[in-house]
Amino acid sequence: MKKFLNKPEDFVDEMIKGILAAHSKQVTCVNDDLRCFVTANVKKGKVGIATGGGSGHLPLFLGYVGENMLDGCSVGGVFQSPSAEQMLEVTKAIDSGRGVLYIYGNYGGDVMNFDMAAEMADMEDIRVEQVVAGEDVASSKKGEEHKRRGVAGIFFVYKTASAAAAAMKDLDEVKRVAQKTADNVRTMGVALSACIVPEVGKPSFTIGEGEMEIGMGIHGEPGIERSSLKSADEIVEQMLNAILEDLPYSKGDEVAVLMNGLGATPKEELYIMYRKVDEMLKERGIKVFHVYVGEYATSMEMAGSSISLLKLDAELKEYLSMPAHTPFFEQVQL
Amino acid sequence: MKKFLNKPEDFVDEMIKGILAAHSKQVTCVNDDLRCFVTANVKKGKVGIATGGGSGHLPLFLGYVGENMLDGCSVGGVFQSPSAEQMLEVTKAIDSGRGVLYIYGNYGGDVMNFDMAAEMADMEDIRVEQVVAGEDVASSKKGEEHKRRGVAGIFFVYKTASAAAAAMKDLDEVKRVAQKTADNVRTMGVALSACIVPEVGKPSFTIGEGEMEIGMGIHGEPGIERSSLKSADEIVEQMLNAILEDLPYSKGDEVAVLMNGLGATPKEELYIMYRKVDEMLKERGIKVFHVYVGEYATSMEMAGSSISLLKLDAELKEYLSMPAHTPFFEQVQL
Repeated sequence: MKKFLNKPEDFVDEMIKGILAAHSKQVTCVNDDLRCFVTANVKKGKVGIATGGGSGHLPLFLGYVGENMLDGCSVGGVFQSPSAEQMLEVTKAIDSGRGVLYIYGNYGGDVMNFDMAAEMADMEDIRVEQVVAGEDVASSKKGEEHKRRGVAGIFFVYKTASAAAAAMKDLDEVKRVAQKTADNVRTMGVALSACIVPEVGKPSFTIGEGEMEIGMGIHGEPGIERSSLKSADEIVEQMLNAILEDLPYSKGDEVAVLMNGLGATPKEELYIMYRKVDEMLKERGIKVFHVYVGEYATSMEMAGSSISLLKLDAELKEYLSMPAHTPFFEQVQL
Repeated sequence: MKKFLNKPEDFVDEMIKGILAAHSKQVTCVNDDLRCFVTANVKKGKVGIATGGGSGHLPLFLGYVGENMLDGCSVGGVFQSPSAEQMLEVTKAIDSGRGVLYIYGNYGGDVMNFDMAAEMADMEDIRVEQVVAGEDVASSKKGEEHKRRGVAGIFFVYKTASAAAAAMKDLDEVKRVAQKTADNVRTMGVALSACIVPEVGKPSFTIGEGEMEIGMGIHGEPGIERSSLKSADEIVEQMLNAILEDLPYSKGDEVAVLMNGLGATPKEELYIMYRKVDEMLKERGIKVFHVYVGEYATSMEMAGSSISLLKLDAELKEYLSMPAHTPFFEQVQL
């Protein structure tokens, strides 16, 4: 295991301590609990937005806490859900009377704990609504979208819903925007290598020297095809075609694209892939409104990438365009 | 070689095509030459700032071309200097009568070509000045600073000099700010694994399974110590002590810190390291003005990191704080 690490069991706490040390003006923790992470500048009178999930995916999940983005995030161990109690602590810290929206990925542990946290919040008279992101087209077939895993595309749900909240919309309206975004985003990933959970110390699976796996999940969940390594263009074709057919995205649509790196894949390669994405979208008459290229949802040192497409309308474009400012994500007005 | 790649010989061109496709509002190329990269919005009447260098280091070098940052960048093959002719093309494209400052890293090929480009620019009546960044304390001993390699710390030189140019200072003044920044920055790196130049197809060196190399350069230049992998805290201590003793940075100083990832190292680990940097600086009474954590200068898929410190005064703080906006780097007013 080749990592910059002290004791493996301190990986998450030390990582969060580093984030707090670097960005103390922007983020803080509730009652010194390192797993209950909130913005240092809670804006009063707006709907609160919380997320949560396992560690090992930076900037997911806590990296999107900040101005015009999320208000709080509960943090679990590497690839482990935070507890309902931690989610509740965050909820209480960020609620300012207009309720709280939970946005999280479709994973069993997270769903169970956020459901429980919502019930506990209800008993404390905090109104909570939930939107579950599940947009990985490789993880379940069309018609069974509710079974799909949430991956990098959750970034778009955060972005638009947070903008709606910052625009002082009420909880029903913020939830509607979040759900609309979740319904219009699709993702497909590809992995070239595994990652190592620090406390495990060795990879939980391997991808052979000349191999790749299309559709693999960000915790190493099985994909749809293990094959020999293809060219960048062939890989993009396979991924993007699956995405385009699924919603479907059609001629005349306008989209935002997220070309995401899983951790060890250099930006050079992401741009080589994006070059092909752009070419294919142009051929199909799909207009690109904005492109995000970089690491938005990772699996530590996993080599790989994912492509997400969000179908836009005027409302989503407006919310996507709003500036945002977190320690991990800066956007000027588009 | 596990990369998202088509033909290895197309690596740089396809990467740049992807960047142009993704960020056409912000950047463009001179006369359709993909190796002559400039901002799409040249601001008239200000000193132009150009850099250049080999590919394979994104965001270095071209990623810092943008608003309140660099105006242009000539691009070489992977780890290869661009030509003097390409540098001249960029120079001509960005000069608006107030002259051009070259800022580049201290590597033989770059120095030779930028010198030649400056002479050629002079013949075209464009005044050019140069500042060479060389701040890697591992690459040459104290007293021989002029032999040191330029690595991630060049980011600080770009940032302050570009801000001075954006503030409409003249060429002498912009050069003075750049040189002052270059004189006050120090970097030390550590590598855990090698990277592969696409056209070579295999690593040019290896670092054994349980090994690391302190002080290795971003092209794999030898460092100062090959040893078994130490703890994150021990590594930071060794790197930061070397930096602190070199300038030296002393009690009462105020600094900006760049905690840089070399490519494959996850942000989680960078923050674990930064936690220790922060602790050590606090112990020594050195105040941190601002921290940058992420990938600022890479070697494709190399695992490793570097720490850079810039000693600040009121002037450098002001220039560092100015907002900037490029496809790879966004900063709001600090």
